[in-house]
Amino acid sequence: MKVGLIGIGTVGGGTYKVLTENAKEILKKTGISIDIARVADKNLALAKKVVGDENKITDDAFDIVNDKEIDLVIELIGGTGIAKELVETALANKKHVVTANKALIAMHGEELVELAEKNKVILAYEASVAGGIPIIKAIREGLAANQIEWIAGIINGTTNYILSEMRENNLTFDVALKQAQELGYAEADPTFDVEGVDAAHKVTIMASIAFGIPVNFEGAYVEGISQLQQKDIAYAEELGYRIKLLAITKAHSDAVEIRVHPTLIPEKRLVANVNGPMNAVLVKGNMVGPTLYYGAGAGAEPTASAVVADVIDIVRQCKHGHGAMIPTLGFTKENIKKKKLLTIEEVESEFYLRLSMKNKTGLLANITNIFADKGVSIDAMVHKEIQDNNLDPDIFLVTSKVKEQTINEIISKIESLPENKDKIIKIRIEELNK
Amino acid sequence: MKVGLIGIGTVGGGTYKVLTENAKEILKKTGISIDIARVADKNLALAKKVVGDENKITDDAFDIVNDKEIDLVIELIGGTGIAKELVETALANKKHVVTANKALIAMHGEELVELAEKNKVILAYEASVAGGIPIIKAIREGLAANQIEWIAGIINGTTNYILSEMRENNLTFDVALKQAQELGYAEADPTFDVEGVDAAHKVTIMASIAFGIPVNFEGAYVEGISQLQQKDIAYAEELGYRIKLLAITKAHSDAVEIRVHPTLIPEKRLVANVNGPMNAVLVKGNMVGPTLYYGAGAGAEPTASAVVADVIDIVRQCKHGHGAMIPTLGFTKENIKKKKLLTIEEVESEFYLRLSMKNKTGLLANITNIFADKGVSIDAMVHKEIQDNNLDPDIFLVTSKVKEQTINEIISKIESLPENKDKIIKIRIEELNK
Repeated sequence: MKVGLIGIGTVGGGTYKVLTENAKEILKKTGISIDIARVADKNLALAKKVVGDENKITDDAFDIVNDKEIDLVIELIGGTGIAKELVETALANKKHVVTANKALIAMHGEELVELAEKNKVILAYEASVAGGIPIIKAIREGLAANQIEWIAGIINGTTNYILSEMRENNLTFDVALKQAQELGYAEADPTFDVEGVDAAHKVTIMASIAFGIPVNFEGAYVEGISQLQQKDIAYAEELGYRIKLLAITKAHSDAVEIRVHPTLIPEKRLVANVNGPMNAVLVKGNMVGPTLYYGAGAGAEPTASAVVADVIDIVRQCKHGHGAMIPTLGFTKENIKKKKLLTIEEVESEFYLRLSMKNKTGLLANITNIFADKGVSIDAMVHKEIQDNNLDPDIFLVTSKVKEQTINEIISKIESLPENKDKIIKIRIEELNK
Repeated sequence: MKVGLIGIGTVGGGTYKVLTENAKEILKKTGISIDIARVADKNLALAKKVVGDENKITDDAFDIVNDKEIDLVIELIGGTGIAKELVETALANKKHVVTANKALIAMHGEELVELAEKNKVILAYEASVAGGIPIIKAIREGLAANQIEWIAGIINGTTNYILSEMRENNLTFDVALKQAQELGYAEADPTFDVEGVDAAHKVTIMASIAFGIPVNFEGAYVEGISQLQQKDIAYAEELGYRIKLLAITKAHSDAVEIRVHPTLIPEKRLVANVNGPMNAVLVKGNMVGPTLYYGAGAGAEPTASAVVADVIDIVRQCKHGHGAMIPTLGFTKENIKKKKLLTIEEVESEFYLRLSMKNKTGLLANITNIFADKGVSIDAMVHKEIQDNNLDPDIFLVTSKVKEQTINEIISKIESLPENKDKIIKIRIEELNK
């Protein structure tokens, strides 16, 4: 099996390492040797340093996707520009493609899947979600007997590291982000990670293979952690919750939710105790119940572990002389059907709200009446005692399960009270027990 | 695909339910309908109640394995007697076999694998380990790019429920066992579960597919939880540990460990927080690092989820007209090699020891000298203060990592001191961080 590797950066370098250092082990499991025939990178010096053999390297990735000798292309440059063109060309040239490119699959999955099927080659993307955790395989194969009801995952290591530091060491978001950048857990421009876009790409892919819907990134609701305050992390803890950036997708009979946002999770749940840069995905099947998959969600070697698992899968299939055994998106083509995506206003959750109000007799009665009028009950409420320089105490509370639109109406009403001092903080809660 | 189902008890009933209630969902993922053509059970009345159609049921399972129309046999009666004969006949008759029978695979895996390969059919056994958790798939496929270094799992729900109850509600083993029996988490004769045999069957299977060794149940060290005392659970907690029945297998360059025993695990590890009847398996790969898989390890529908996942895998492979794509034990036949199995005396661990000694001046010096003479350091030691009716305090301690044989020698020496009152309690510790 002749492989062409495009991109020799972090994940590319890791992939080269796994394929070479574990070559003997992999051969024992496949019976077919995997030959890294060519490597492409703009940085020829780096490529030469990693690969050694000058004859194998090129700075033009199109050399690889057009090379008749190559059976399988590993695309690890990322993004949706040149990477898309390369993957399309490789598939059109009847080469199998393995990619870790979540943006590419989330935004152009549909057309690429069609192209792969038309050319009877395999498009594999295990590494695009949750790094080294074999979650695509678990959903598409291991849990295939189930109707998946929902998935909730911590699938962005950067934000999980930041949130863990904010909680454990009482840091502000800005300080924790800086620390994450120094340790290499966050990029110089951290926007994609901290604003939830990376997690949204990943959950979009999982929603497709879990529910048999086309990959549809546009429909996802995305909210990051950059506005999160230490205070709310501490208050959540008082109520028995941890705050995580959760990527959630749920199936309804005729609709689907896809959303990423900071979320309160009961601290007793295993997933609430996943800290640092680690990832975990909780999958609820109608027969198996909840199952959880935990591991490193990023980094050179963990991500490469998933890339190479895909390569091995393809080698094992090719050995028996046929194309994709597993439908690329888990469901057979004719069974992938568009479903309505709920807007965030239509989604039901419990809510954590924090109010900043001037203290006044009758205030709590005023507030609770607003909830009662809308038929929403308050499951817990704390009136934080008055501190040194703050005569107006914080009020924070947990609501019953309700449509977000209703909560927004309640918030408007409270914010229009004369006692209101500031914007109400709203964070969604997921109990993850049903 | 015509399926014959043997055994319509708990897991058999669950499998029938999954295949019928999720039939539409499964069809969407495979494109081929799965027809439960025949069902065998000694209890014809039960079979009739579940299946309805009298023409499909039989009380002679050999009817099914000899039926020319049947493509795939699901064996769910368990044990190594008649079940073995049925599976052998089915394989010899060129039928694929799916089984949840851990004892059968752990004790006769080698011959059955050979028979399946000879007849070019698939023998699948995902449900034999950790119920609904797709752990066989994770190890054989998802982590295939890795050299697996070790696996440590809570893979017996009965004992995990008992240990959770002993800790959370301060129950004795006997009371917790009785409660487990009342709730259906433990059998009337709980020996196989509480003495660790069930977990040993399962870890034996995982060792084989992780390390490319033949399935060898005889080599496993097995120790159950029936002798465990509440006191040690409490003392372990004081030291920051939880006690779990852990099934462990580790690879050395030329040897393998397979062992099941009560184990102290740092309470900070995710796996230490897996409670009640739930299962979790921690797998350490050389590239991906630690990954964890959590879910229901038993019960009708979770186990059936794994059984049917295997059926779907086979359907997907047959659709493309060929036999086993994945080597049955993960490695190709010529790469499965016997390795020396370490005896428990050769295994290195840290140890928790609890001593019952008459209090006497100079006692601690005597004890610590015995450790020092053997080159073993004591990492933590607690001298429990004297309580009401007990003038002789408990002493418990944690050692550095050392061969078990050395610890046994130390224990003998201490037990031969004149102050010694009772057998020393010894429990192994696993840090699970490397």
